[in-house]
Amino acid sequence: MRDLDAQETYLVDRMGVAFELRDLVGSGPTPQGPYAGPYGVVGLGEGWWAARLAQDWAAEFTHSGTQFVLEGGYDLGEGGLYAAASGAEIVRLGWREHVEVELLPSPLSSYRYLRFLLLATGQSDQLARIDGALLAERDRLRPEVGLDKNPAKFLAYSLLERTPMFVVPRRYPGLAEALQQVLARIGKSLSFTPPPSALEFFLTALEARHEQGDPIAAVLLGDDERKRVAQEILESRVDTLIELPEPEAEGTLAKALAYWYRLAWTAYYLALLYGVEPGDWEALEHLRQAT
Amino acid sequence: MRDLDAQETYLVDRMGVAFELRDLVGSGPTPQGPYAGPYGVVGLGEGWWAARLAQDWAAEFTHSGTQFVLEGGYDLGEGGLYAAASGAEIVRLGWREHVEVELLPSPLSSYRYLRFLLLATGQSDQLARIDGALLAERDRLRPEVGLDKNPAKFLAYSLLERTPMFVVPRRYPGLAEALQQVLARIGKSLSFTPPPSALEFFLTALEARHEQGDPIAAVLLGDDERKRVAQEILESRVDTLIELPEPEAEGTLAKALAYWYRLAWTAYYLALLYGVEPGDWEALEHLRQAT
Repeated sequence: MRDLDAQETYLVDRMGVAFELRDLVGSGPTPQGPYAGPYGVVGLGEGWWAARLAQDWAAEFTHSGTQFVLEGGYDLGEGGLYAAASGAEIVRLGWREHVEVELLPSPLSSYRYLRFLLLATGQSDQLARIDGALLAERDRLRPEVGLDKNPAKFLAYSLLERTPMFVVPRRYPGLAEALQQVLARIGKSLSFTPPPSALEFFLTALEARHEQGDPIAAVLLGDDERKRVAQEILESRVDTLIELPEPEAEGTLAKALAYWYRLAWTAYYLALLYGVEPGDWEALEHLRQAT
Repeated sequence: MRDLDAQETYLVDRMGVAFELRDLVGSGPTPQGPYAGPYGVVGLGEGWWAARLAQDWAAEFTHSGTQFVLEGGYDLGEGGLYAAASGAEIVRLGWREHVEVELLPSPLSSYRYLRFLLLATGQSDQLARIDGALLAERDRLRPEVGLDKNPAKFLAYSLLERTPMFVVPRRYPGLAEALQQVLARIGKSLSFTPPPSALEFFLTALEARHEQGDPIAAVLLGDDERKRVAQEILESRVDTLIELPEPEAEGTLAKALAYWYRLAWTAYYLALLYGVEPGDWEALEHLRQAT
């Protein structure tokens, strides 16, 4: 097995994903000043999670103020999207030619879309909380921190040769899917998440699996009554059960981003353990041809 | 391999799930008359999908009119749920003692929750479209129809010993998860669904899987540009690719329910092929003890 504390393990990272992870906080486009409210935020492709998170404080569409369209790259356009926002100033973020704000595709772009939105809507305090949480995570997750003190390295070893199932509290909208995404794009790994009403799912979908298929690693986020019950049911039904304690952060949004960032680091280490390139430039190039 | 056209294959259905499937249309509680609007609909546990579908024409919470709470059984209660709806008449559906409308737990209860909601809010025309679509599906999916003319039986054979991945157009909210649920609870099978921004996911999560793990069966719903691209990418990355043409039905809601019903029949046949009980009474009993 490859050693995450040995330098040669990192040679497979030809595109420098470690640097992008390390320098994530503060990266991405910065708005010149706040845009006029009310706000609408709609997200396609890579922009989907930032848009979902923004539903806490913005509508999907607005007919006055500012309509943000997080184009997100490779998803297929939706007809009528712009018509729905007529009357508002339209600000498109993405990487196609016509955009107002350029934002290049990346497995980590969720942070950059969200950062722009928070700054553009006068919520720099929210962003500061997120950034603080991410920097705290980074301090303990970066490659220089040895396995014995590095939760992301440790988690990567636990997920190796297993299929992770992310069990995420409802108060983190979209986080489970965001984790699925980052584990795929950086870690080149398949993972899944149970549907709502997960308890019945655990009892039925996993029962038959007992003697077949890949071993499943249940990754439980948060710490509430629901997690306790899930844990009790899952214990005898999965190969291993991993609890991820809540990040030290103020507010749900900062906690969600910190969780996501931790799994992004984990995905990075997982790619290294599999000996595959953690970057996904080639995959994106493929997509550019197909769409 | 078991024969879905042979009577002895059906002996494993001790609880008569085939009858529940056959008699689904028109089943469940019927409201005495319409309730006063405006409407709020919130759903927990098994009630989640009906509540999600209702977002098309109802808010989540209302302070006047009628607040429907689809309790859905085994999910864990949410504090503050009822406080949020103060001012409205509260109508609880579910199986606990205090409910206004009794609705027993079942893998098929999504239909019954939705049926009640549509009748209670004066949308019997919508329900008629759904019922018509379901009856049309039933005519070709029931056990008496032989394999050569029965798409659900055929699909069940295709999914056998494979892990289905449901790729569902965005216009069907919650359908992918509803399919995951029904395949688990009736078919005792694990399935998954890609996160939003699925194209990058296909290219990265499935690449590494090529030589390991369970064979994946991609099940593609709908027929649009997005499906064409997904198909092109998936062709070389999954074990088999199955296209499910849109049901003959009027409107997105009826189409969504028809798709779901078709997969419920498929899950039933899949359980028979695995030789396991398609009912999940035992699983639910388990849950009753744990929660």
